[in-house]
Amino acid sequence: MEKNQETLSVLRHSTSHVLAQAVQKLFPQAKLAIGPATDDGFYYDFDMTDGHTFTQEDFEKIENEMKNIIKQNLSFEKVFVEDVDKQIAQFNSEGEIYKSELLEEHRNDNPTLYLTKDKDGNVLFNDLCAGPHVPNTSYIKGNAFKLLKVAGAYWRGNENNKMLQRIYATAYWNKEDLQSYLTMLEEAEKRDHRKLGKQLDLFSVREEIGGGLVLWHPNLAVVREEIENYWRTEHRKRGYVIVNTPQIAKSKLWEISGHMDHYKENMFFIQKDDDTDDQFVVKPMNCPFHILIYQANRYSYRSLPLRMAELGTVYRKEKSGALAGLTRVQGFTQDDAHVFCTPEQLVDEINAIIDFVADTMKIFKMDFEVELSTRPESYVGELENWNLAEAGLKEAMNRRGMKYDINEGDGAFYGPKIDFKVKDAIGRTWQCATIQLDFNLPERFNIKYQDKDGSMKTPVMLHRVIFGSMERFHGILIEHYAGAFPTWLAPTQVSIVPISTEKHGDYAQSIYNKMREAGIRVHLDDRSESMNYKIRESLKEHKVPYVCVVGDREQETNTVALRKRAVGQVGTFDVDEFIENIKKEIADKVSGE
Amino acid sequence: MEKNQETLSVLRHSTSHVLAQAVQKLFPQAKLAIGPATDDGFYYDFDMTDGHTFTQEDFEKIENEMKNIIKQNLSFEKVFVEDVDKQIAQFNSEGEIYKSELLEEHRNDNPTLYLTKDKDGNVLFNDLCAGPHVPNTSYIKGNAFKLLKVAGAYWRGNENNKMLQRIYATAYWNKEDLQSYLTMLEEAEKRDHRKLGKQLDLFSVREEIGGGLVLWHPNLAVVREEIENYWRTEHRKRGYVIVNTPQIAKSKLWEISGHMDHYKENMFFIQKDDDTDDQFVVKPMNCPFHILIYQANRYSYRSLPLRMAELGTVYRKEKSGALAGLTRVQGFTQDDAHVFCTPEQLVDEINAIIDFVADTMKIFKMDFEVELSTRPESYVGELENWNLAEAGLKEAMNRRGMKYDINEGDGAFYGPKIDFKVKDAIGRTWQCATIQLDFNLPERFNIKYQDKDGSMKTPVMLHRVIFGSMERFHGILIEHYAGAFPTWLAPTQVSIVPISTEKHGDYAQSIYNKMREAGIRVHLDDRSESMNYKIRESLKEHKVPYVCVVGDREQETNTVALRKRAVGQVGTFDVDEFIENIKKEIADKVSGE
Repeated sequence: MEKNQETLSVLRHSTSHVLAQAVQKLFPQAKLAIGPATDDGFYYDFDMTDGHTFTQEDFEKIENEMKNIIKQNLSFEKVFVEDVDKQIAQFNSEGEIYKSELLEEHRNDNPTLYLTKDKDGNVLFNDLCAGPHVPNTSYIKGNAFKLLKVAGAYWRGNENNKMLQRIYATAYWNKEDLQSYLTMLEEAEKRDHRKLGKQLDLFSVREEIGGGLVLWHPNLAVVREEIENYWRTEHRKRGYVIVNTPQIAKSKLWEISGHMDHYKENMFFIQKDDDTDDQFVVKPMNCPFHILIYQANRYSYRSLPLRMAELGTVYRKEKSGALAGLTRVQGFTQDDAHVFCTPEQLVDEINAIIDFVADTMKIFKMDFEVELSTRPESYVGELENWNLAEAGLKEAMNRRGMKYDINEGDGAFYGPKIDFKVKDAIGRTWQCATIQLDFNLPERFNIKYQDKDGSMKTPVMLHRVIFGSMERFHGILIEHYAGAFPTWLAPTQVSIVPISTEKHGDYAQSIYNKMREAGIRVHLDDRSESMNYKIRESLKEHKVPYVCVVGDREQETNTVALRKRAVGQVGTFDVDEFIENIKKEIADKVSGE
Repeated sequence: MEKNQETLSVLRHSTSHVLAQAVQKLFPQAKLAIGPATDDGFYYDFDMTDGHTFTQEDFEKIENEMKNIIKQNLSFEKVFVEDVDKQIAQFNSEGEIYKSELLEEHRNDNPTLYLTKDKDGNVLFNDLCAGPHVPNTSYIKGNAFKLLKVAGAYWRGNENNKMLQRIYATAYWNKEDLQSYLTMLEEAEKRDHRKLGKQLDLFSVREEIGGGLVLWHPNLAVVREEIENYWRTEHRKRGYVIVNTPQIAKSKLWEISGHMDHYKENMFFIQKDDDTDDQFVVKPMNCPFHILIYQANRYSYRSLPLRMAELGTVYRKEKSGALAGLTRVQGFTQDDAHVFCTPEQLVDEINAIIDFVADTMKIFKMDFEVELSTRPESYVGELENWNLAEAGLKEAMNRRGMKYDINEGDGAFYGPKIDFKVKDAIGRTWQCATIQLDFNLPERFNIKYQDKDGSMKTPVMLHRVIFGSMERFHGILIEHYAGAFPTWLAPTQVSIVPISTEKHGDYAQSIYNKMREAGIRVHLDDRSESMNYKIRESLKEHKVPYVCVVGDREQETNTVALRKRAVGQVGTFDVDEFIENIKKEIADKVSGE
């Protein structure tokens, strides 16, 4: 088999079998659960029946044992389970209750085992597994896999089941690839937005409020305000109207929209009063509200497209175990928009949205990849419209020479979609923007426009986000910039440090006032700490883009001695010149570095 | 007795007795409920046991009968109910079951009756009533009272009770005062924000969502965006930090804050999951969240005051009968701020907030009056702090030579407050801004700062809003401006009307583009309607401040023929000159009229 990106998951899956084999040998009390490949590696879940918790030393032992196994050049061999009951009995006799539970479930799916065999045909390990696998362990390089960490994981993700121990690991075709992945991981850990969130006083999540519900501290609220200002200005420019809609609504609305049928588990329901039949729900989506606003007016083909946008805050129930920082939350603000248009306008509208995404991501210096998901087997709406829409999405992307992957049959039941995966500064991809067509809601709400021939027709509806969720996008931005926001976003843009508070305090105050008046977010550090401490703290710990040091010389010449965050000392600047430079940098939405 | 503003409510209360007497005479089937004076007049609730509904013709008959009664110069006489049981029996025998219910309740409050007597001492009417009343009916002028409307009202405001008919009316000391009140009412009706809300496509409230939950249509969302931009800019200027906090939180937070004890009935509780003990609540207030953000850092007397602001959307349960338009809602965004300061900083902080309110209301050309509410009998916190705070509030107002009323003992149990009542264009007052001191929450959340001497102290906390609720303030603004927003707020600032779409369409488009680029909210009306129709619609119906008409002459000279909303034709202007003028008008936040 070829050793490339596509077959990596096969390698990783096989390496997970080797991991399980090693653990089984070293820890006979371990019961095996499951061990799939993931996007970045693989894991295996173990039930350590004696309560043993894997340690760093165990990792070394296990890795060594895995290397031993690999060296033996064992083969992976697939066999069908011929007698399911017998195999279940076999698993049970070995104590492998998780395997037997799974086998019972897949009894009618032609279940297979994978056997790990030595040259003499002895089976050293076997696992219930659909495969595929590499032919033998020589494909796995002893210096190209690594155990990474251990974490608790409920059997089948269900909080009512037993907590197992999940060993996370990864494997690559060669040492270099593993090394660059590990370097990226190390970098990612440094950039962890939860860590930086504390260091830079950006946000918090509090036990008194609940998981996945974010307090935006002043520093991050500044970043958000800048981004929202950009967002609103750009939307107005591009012909959107902006609306505001409430966070709670009667369940009736969600019955019309269909969410009561297929989204109920994620919705926060409000307790009913004794004296009313009204059931209120905290909104998980903005779309039905936008449709009601559409309904408030009559439209013709000439007055469409209607592009309606909102920074709409929604709430979706998540398992508390899945919540983390800003990226996995229960309450978040979508930069949501819905475009109502005629079929003839569809391609232009999609094209305009792709432009919008591209222009926006360019500001953050983020590339993106695109995936198109097409009609699934079961769908609503007319086949003709689906074909039109998919062709429209493709044409819009082709027109601009854009490459895209196609996930055939992976669209939602109500329409095809385009997903944008943005790449951050250390090469990780994040799902952010999407364009989702919807043939369902316009029918359910019976919205219409009058066409050229006077007939009333149903408009096409597009759901669209650029950032996705403000919470998540800010989490991504923090990691993308490693907390060192470009000047236009930096919570504090300039820190002024007088060499002596006593001697230079007045001058420092005067340039502070001047900068404040110029609209710059400036901080005057007049604490009685040492100058170097204050400079270092501003640049390194608080990641302020500019520090202006002022002493005798600067005071006499009306200048500042300038330090840049990433560069250090860059010379002495006239105060007005510096203000003009930084104002331009802010207006251009760039970093001076 | 003196006939002045203060005694008006006495006059009105007496007139309500006359109303009841007249109704009782004309409609013997009517049972009497209650008839108090209100801010603008009075009402009386009747149970028309035969189902009769009051009509306009009835109003005339009743008014005439009231005039008859007044002419007889009857006296009002107070008597104590000596034998309550006997009086209850008396009421019951007359069918006055509402009176007997009330009397039963006030049995131990030294209840009194007011008798309306003729010269011979005959009692023509009596009512359970605490008084006071005017001495006799000659104080009531036949041409200075008026019945206004009838509406349904549940007995004691409880939806489970019988629906009564409430006759609203008013009375003044003289005809002129009545007349100017009626003129104001007429003007208010024209300005009704619910009516204008439809006409100008500003907002809607939909049955599918629920009462008091507002959909902000694009036109009103524009107004709000301008006001929020002003709000944010001003807060940054005045040294506030801005935060964002979630709309739902665990009930634990509200237990700490005390809202679970004394505010439960207004809170929307979220249904509990089976698999968790967590009770979530939709937030009715932002304060506890801001306190948690305070807790995330350590403060010294030098780093205070901390001024923390948020446009925070809250939800408070209201009886559906009480909901109307934008002014009585269940979901609304407070322009909320909390100032945490040392006792020494209190006066300056209050002063700064009064400045902020005054500067803001000046922009909307609204005057305001101020009321100070002081320590009630039962209160929390130290007496010393209360005295300090009340003195501080007074000092801040005295310092600026501001007049204020004092409501002795009318403060909240947790602190004194200042209410600002703004006066709109037709003289009505609206409660908007408030400054509320709070000695309770800082203790409950145990927040501290380090004072000069190193000791940890509890900061003073101020709650403060300027607009109050964005929903309500926008309702007030719509009525204040009668929908004719000043240029900076107008959803559409300029409408361009080509005389002939064919001949002048290109020129119209070119100046449209130019204005759009200049950031003006401009609309190009290229429909095939008549020019005059389009001008009239823009100026009168849509209340657009400016209409630019363009024909041959304008096209040749690069000008526009300008119409102003309130003025009509104002001459021909060079395009660039017009753009400069309107840009200045927008920046100055004024109306060109």
